[in-house]
Amino acid sequence: MAQNKANTVSQLQSLKNKSGKSYNQLAEETGLTNVYVAQLLRRQAHLKPETAPKLKAALPELPEELIHEMMKPPLRSYDPNIIQDPTVYRLNEAVMHFGESIKEIINEEFGDGIMSAIDFYCSVDKVQGVDGKDRVVLTFDGKYLPHSEQKTEHMVSRTRPLEKQ
Amino acid sequence: MAQNKANTVSQLQSLKNKSGKSYNQLAEETGLTNVYVAQLLRRQAHLKPETAPKLKAALPELPEELIHEMMKPPLRSYDPNIIQDPTVYRLNEAVMHFGESIKEIINEEFGDGIMSAIDFYCSVDKVQGVDGKDRVVLTFDGKYLPHSEQKTEHMVSRTRPLEKQ
Amino acid sequence: MAQNKANTVSQLQSLKNKSGKSYNQLAEETGLTNVYVAQLLRRQAHLKPETAPKLKAALPELPEELIHEMMKPPLRSYDPNIIQDPTVYRLNEAVMHFGESIKEIINEEFGDGIMSAIDFYCSVDKVQGVDGKDRVVLTFDGKYLPHSEQKTEHMVSRTRPLEKQ
Amino acid sequence: MAQNKANTVSQLQSLKNKSGKSYNQLAEETGLTNVYVAQLLRRQAHLKPETAPKLKAALPELPEELIHEMMKPPLRSYDPNIIQDPTVYRLNEAVMHFGESIKEIINEEFGDGIMSAIDFYCSVDKVQGVDGKDRVVLTFDGKYLPHSEQKTEHMVSRTRPLEKQ
Amino acid sequence: MAQNKANTVSQLQSLKNKSGKSYNQLAEETGLTNVYVAQLLRRQAHLKPETAPKLKAALPELPEELIHEMMKPPLRSYDPNIIQDPTVYRLNEAVMHFGESIKEIINEEFGDGIMSAIDFYCSVDKVQGVDGKDRVVLTFDGKYLPHSEQKTEHMVSRTRPLEKQ
Amino acid sequence: MAQNKANTVSQLQSLKNKSGKSYNQLAEETGLTNVYVAQLLRRQAHLKPETAPKLKAALPELPEELIHEMMKPPLRSYDPNIIQDPTVYRLNEAVMHFGESIKEIINEEFGDGIMSAIDFYCSVDKVQGVDGKDRVVLTFDGKYLPHSEQKTEHMVSRTRPLEKQ
Amino acid sequence: MAQNKANTVSQLQSLKNKSGKSYNQLAEETGLTNVYVAQLLRRQAHLKPETAPKLKAALPELPEELIHEMMKPPLRSYDPNIIQDPTVYRLNEAVMHFGESIKEIINEEFGDGIMSAIDFYCSVDKVQGVDGKDRVVLTFDGKYLPHSEQKTEHMVSRTRPLEKQ
Amino acid sequence: MAQNKANTVSQLQSLKNKSGKSYNQLAEETGLTNVYVAQLLRRQAHLKPETAPKLKAALPELPEELIHEMMKPPLRSYDPNIIQDPTVYRLNEAVMHFGESIKEIINEEFGDGIMSAIDFYCSVDKVQGVDGKDRVVLTFDGKYLPHSEQKTEHMVSRTRPLEKQ
Amino acid sequence: MAQNKANTVSQLQSLKNKSGKSYNQLAEETGLTNVYVAQLLRRQAHLKPETAPKLKAALPELPEELIHEMMKPPLRSYDPNIIQDPTVYRLNEAVMHFGESIKEIINEEFGDGIMSAIDFYCSVDKVQGVDGKDRVVLTFDGKYLPHSEQKTEHMVSRTRPLEKQ
Amino acid sequence: MAQNKANTVSQLQSLKNKSGKSYNQLAEETGLTNVYVAQLLRRQAHLKPETAPKLKAALPELPEELIHEMMKPPLRSYDPNIIQDPTVYRLNEAVMHFGESIKEIINEEFGDGIMSAIDFYCSVDKVQGVDGKDRVVLTFDGKYLPHSEQKTEHMVSRTRPLEKQ
Repeated sequence: MAQNKANTVSQLQSLKNKSGKSYNQLAEETGLTNVYVAQLLRRQAHLKPETAPKLKAALPELPEELIHEMMKPPLRSYDPNIIQDPTVYRLNEAVMHFGESIKEIINEEFGDGIMSAIDFYCSVDKVQGVDGKDRVVLTFDGKYLPHSEQKTEHMVSRTRPLEKQ
Repeated sequence: MAQNKANTVSQLQSLKNKSGKSYNQLAEETGLTNVYVAQLLRRQAHLKPETAPKLKAALPELPEELIHEMMKPPLRSYDPNIIQDPTVYRLNEAVMHFGESIKEIINEEFGDGIMSAIDFYCSVDKVQGVDGKDRVVLTFDGKYLPHSEQKTEHMVSRTRPLEKQ
Repeated sequence: MAQNKANTVSQLQSLKNKSGKSYNQLAEETGLTNVYVAQLLRRQAHLKPETAPKLKAALPELPEELIHEMMKPPLRSYDPNIIQDPTVYRLNEAVMHFGESIKEIINEEFGDGIMSAIDFYCSVDKVQGVDGKDRVVLTFDGKYLPHSEQKTEHMVSRTRPLEKQ
Repeated sequence: MAQNKANTVSQLQSLKNKSGKSYNQLAEETGLTNVYVAQLLRRQAHLKPETAPKLKAALPELPEELIHEMMKPPLRSYDPNIIQDPTVYRLNEAVMHFGESIKEIINEEFGDGIMSAIDFYCSVDKVQGVDGKDRVVLTFDGKYLPHSEQKTEHMVSRTRPLEKQ
Repeated sequence: MAQNKANTVSQLQSLKNKSGKSYNQLAEETGLTNVYVAQLLRRQAHLKPETAPKLKAALPELPEELIHEMMKPPLRSYDPNIIQDPTVYRLNEAVMHFGESIKEIINEEFGDGIMSAIDFYCSVDKVQGVDGKDRVVLTFDGKYLPHSEQKTEHMVSRTRPLEKQ
Repeated sequence: MAQNKANTVSQLQSLKNKSGKSYNQLAEETGLTNVYVAQLLRRQAHLKPETAPKLKAALPELPEELIHEMMKPPLRSYDPNIIQDPTVYRLNEAVMHFGESIKEIINEEFGDGIMSAIDFYCSVDKVQGVDGKDRVVLTFDGKYLPHSEQKTEHMVSRTRPLEKQ
Repeated sequence: MAQNKANTVSQLQSLKNKSGKSYNQLAEETGLTNVYVAQLLRRQAHLKPETAPKLKAALPELPEELIHEMMKPPLRSYDPNIIQDPTVYRLNEAVMHFGESIKEIINEEFGDGIMSAIDFYCSVDKVQGVDGKDRVVLTFDGKYLPHSEQKTEHMVSRTRPLEKQ
Repeated sequence: MAQNKANTVSQLQSLKNKSGKSYNQLAEETGLTNVYVAQLLRRQAHLKPETAPKLKAALPELPEELIHEMMKPPLRSYDPNIIQDPTVYRLNEAVMHFGESIKEIINEEFGDGIMSAIDFYCSVDKVQGVDGKDRVVLTFDGKYLPHSEQKTEHMVSRTRPLEKQ
Repeated sequence: MAQNKANTVSQLQSLKNKSGKSYNQLAEETGLTNVYVAQLLRRQAHLKPETAPKLKAALPELPEELIHEMMKPPLRSYDPNIIQDPTVYRLNEAVMHFGESIKEIINEEFGDGIMSAIDFYCSVDKVQGVDGKDRVVLTFDGKYLPHSEQKTEHMVSRTRPLEKQ
Repeated sequence: MAQNKANTVSQLQSLKNKSGKSYNQLAEETGLTNVYVAQLLRRQAHLKPETAPKLKAALPELPEELIHEMMKPPLRSYDPNIIQDPTVYRLNEAVMHFGESIKEIINEEFGDGIMSAIDFYCSVDKVQGVDGKDRVVLTFDGKYLPHSEQKTEHMVSRTRPLEKQ
């Protein structure tokens, strides 16, 4: 399956290269965030039926069988060695060093819960700092998910065992 | 903070032992699942305001300051060595060996998404097998969370950079 | 042997895809749990003689040599990287965070023993929560196995050394 | 809890040392295997009610509160560094190098199943080899557990979801 | 040194708790981002001279010796186990799964360089999604740093060896 | 070399399968333990000259070149992932959990030494427990090796440096 | 992608070997440091447009398509096993043993910041020690990057959320 | 137990320091290798009854209770971090890089077996190289142990199962 | 021993802080590199007899017993977590990413050998880049050590076995 | 490069096998230690120009291109799994268990320094123990390298920065 995925990604990258379009261009043409488009072309995201025609329009040479493949839920994965790349390491460094602070601010402002990584948006943007230099802005925007209190009466799946015993 | 948590847990366990009540009894008296009650007494879950009086009723010797502590969002953690315990290992074994199958069935029956571990219920029950022997039933019941498609127009946090540049 | 297994799994997955049947359908036709059927098609479970005809009926294109292969005890294994997949990670997270609580409840309700992962059933079901939303229910149902007290008189294999010395 | 266990073990070892008895002697007096007695005195096994008086007879200075503690199900664990000890390493070496062969012989002679480590006996014995030299004999004697086939009709815990949906 | 840091952090957290102020309030009063204030109170950031009086004003009970300590460059570190916490894990998951895509978009939009984690801003905000539900927005804003081409003539430190030989 | 070994093992396994004989049968015909025969057919043990004809008699299709290969000392190794297999894991679990107890009993009964894993016998047997159920008996039988006291006069290799200095 | 990179590197190394030039010669001809040239020929650095002709002049057989490939930002990576090589290990040893001292001297002489590994020069030189013996001099020359204080007013990307809420 | 060992070692080291004797001196006075004496004073070796008086003579202040402790079989262990020390690392480097060559030479000169690390002598000596410079000579002198062929008739412990079945 | 070292380092750091001197000042007063002085005050280097008076002059409050302690060869070690610190990580990143290139240049310019980390100098310096900005210059200056060819006639320690056999 | 090395080693091993010579024979014919010869034939050592003809004489079928390859400095490496082999493990066990003792004896007898693994000889010899049994003698003979004191005046590479500032 891993081999399969690698082949698909290789074809998709090659198609994008031939098109000469950047992820930002593809994002604009499909109405998706730039990160999501890049994830689609790595088989790390799921192509939705209503988006398939837009992607096809943006990458006209995309064959039907690849579109078909992209519409299956992917097995999300990554090569652990990508943390060696300086860009990826810096992000990981920020998350690990700031992690507890971020968690506590979420707790103070929202309550006992987390930022979802599933109902989640991500984009990379370019802004100019106060010194006029380019800055990378990475935005993580995820739904707040409160930890549920596990009340027996709300646990639909659990009425059974009481009858059973 | 880890030290702090350990002290709180130690006091809570001691209180439970003195009460002579099982987790099942505490679960029944508080209307919570047995696993959730156990998590509360390990500071792995958050005590909600409306539940605090029920817990106080079930464990009358629970001091106010501990109740106060239990109402703060905990830092969820575990000792990696608990995987040495045969009970915990067997669960981990099942998850790792059955993991891809479970994922694929979720994909087939629900779509491209996951079972939440946040909006989540868990209980341990006792049933009799067809051979009349005792069986442990562990139920994981989590909300289905579909992976969001990251449409730019739905990403509220992202309208800014367009204005900025 | 690992290579061998990968080839077999690849053929089995391809056969299932061609059949157009879901794991739930195959489960219903064979009388097995959906997770067990998925395990069979990954060579993670053993096909029993009485079940082979049912599986053949459900997947008529299944060749005899694959059936023969599936009737050998498999070497159970998994790719450690599947824990990267969000679905699998969430399950692992639940097991590690709730592990000690689950263990203690088993001890209170059953005694000093564990839930077997060998005499074990597993299924994935779909229910509606009290808010009307879909929920995934994962059931682990394993025989309770008490830790044996190792009495010399019950250790059949050990009468020898007494004669020997 | 780990701290607690360490204290208990330290007291038990001290008691044994004062008694001047070997594990073999304690094994004989209690009717248990020598390994099981040693596990009891490390809080790695559970003291059964009918065995408590025998242990008390063998170690008369054993205080009631320790007996009480020993009758609770322990959290089984080990220090991963014990694999540095040559005795423990050699055992691990044998298991890892012979593992697949042992598995295959079990499959051939018993079927698709395993040797339980829960319904399990273990003893260490001394014999003389054909060259007249001392040899250590370690016996692992565990119940054969066949992997269950997960038939829906036998999964008692699973009738519910069918009614639910 | 680690012990020292832990003590300082413990005092700072205690002071903040007594003040009853959230990180957002402290951020507003000091003109810093909420994450940076939280990092200051964990000794993960450096208190600048001009900011010290503002922090003192926001937390009047902050003793001079702690302010003095906070003005030393800290040894930045974290407990690797915080990745067990669901909030921190989800962030890490996003970084590892999206890492290559983020890197490629930076390459396309900026060139061969990275987002600095040193000239870096981070904040946690609360917004409402299109469904009216709360969302967590985490912003990483770092200076773009191009990989330098290592031209000998620009390497000031290197004229020496030529003279030496 | 690893590739070489894998090829040899693959051929040997295939020969055994064709012969239709179990490891127990091969063991009986060659006068070796069942585990040792299985190790021979995985190139984890060394075929001795006097045993080669017996093995050839038991597996008449075994070609001379494979016999020749089997008579070279092998590089003993294993795939670390076999610990995922439940059978192998249970053995490892027993060794790690019982390790210190086994060591101490050896010390009490034999002295300061270990059980050799080199002058070592291993077999898997089938017995019936007191409940009439099948049990797996795994026997490890190794020569007792006392840790040598390193007396200079007994260190033959060391007289030199005294002359040298 | 990793495969792709390996192929490119293999071709580049082969070209260099055929040219008979050392990294020092290539460095002199291109005006780059010797380490940077070596990194270029391993696809660990980015070939700039103005440098491409110089490299082409130094390695006339370098085909255009490789030059084109070298002008793409590389995914920087390494084989973790290179730490086994004694040369690389010694460097790592120095960094880990001297790390905290280096950090503290940077803090004393520059302030709370780091040496960049991005705006960075590296060279290997040969000098004679006071004993007349050859010595290797490795120079790391990186821009000093102060940790930014995260002032809200300077965080260009962050004015939005205030308007939003 | 680890704590216990650390205390004993600390006392033994302190006694040695007060005595002002080197390991070489202690070795000469006790007739042991210098490495073995050093191991004794770290509780990594077992003090034999006939050697105890010699050690007492060499270190007259050695209290009886420590001698008593040193005569118990130790739990052999090490701090994995000692590999950071350059001396220890260099030894490990030599073993790992030369390991296969050493193994093959043993196989060629002795047969299919190993060098025992139990019936084992070790010493550190000082010699002058051909250039007149000091050299460290580390000698490992271990008994050759041939891998036993596991003949059933020689497996004394195994006659039982034949009777049993 | 680790505890001991930590105490010594803590006292030494405290003495330096009271003195108000930087490592650069101490380096100048003692004639040592700044990194070496810092290593001395962390017990990572050995204080030589002729340098002790200079260090005493630079830090007059340094007590004799600490000087005595500093003149013992230290056990060199580090806390593996310091790699979390951004300064240390960047150095490690450079070494791992540039490692093979550095090795090859050493091979080309010196031959088959390494840069010693024992006969080794290290300093941190401050220079201004061509853009007028501060840069950190880290110099590693180690003796070139050629891998020796192991000629039997040059192996002084080895004449013995020839006589012995 | 790893692939390249594997191919070369495979050819060299095959040549040696055809020659029918042992490492000891090759050592005698080339005047090298047996371990060094074995390292040469695994591309773990560097073939010197004056030794090449001797090796060619000992292995006449050795082709020129392999000799050419063997005269390049190798990338020294090993497969971490060789530690599974009992021979290699026993060596590693000895190094790790005896490591600190060896280090301390070197410190006492030589000073603050190490045994070089670069200017290093290694041989495997066969001797008879006092009991007449075969023993393996492994000799590590390395140059003593004192840790240098880093005096600024002796650091040739460092006069520069003083001029620069």
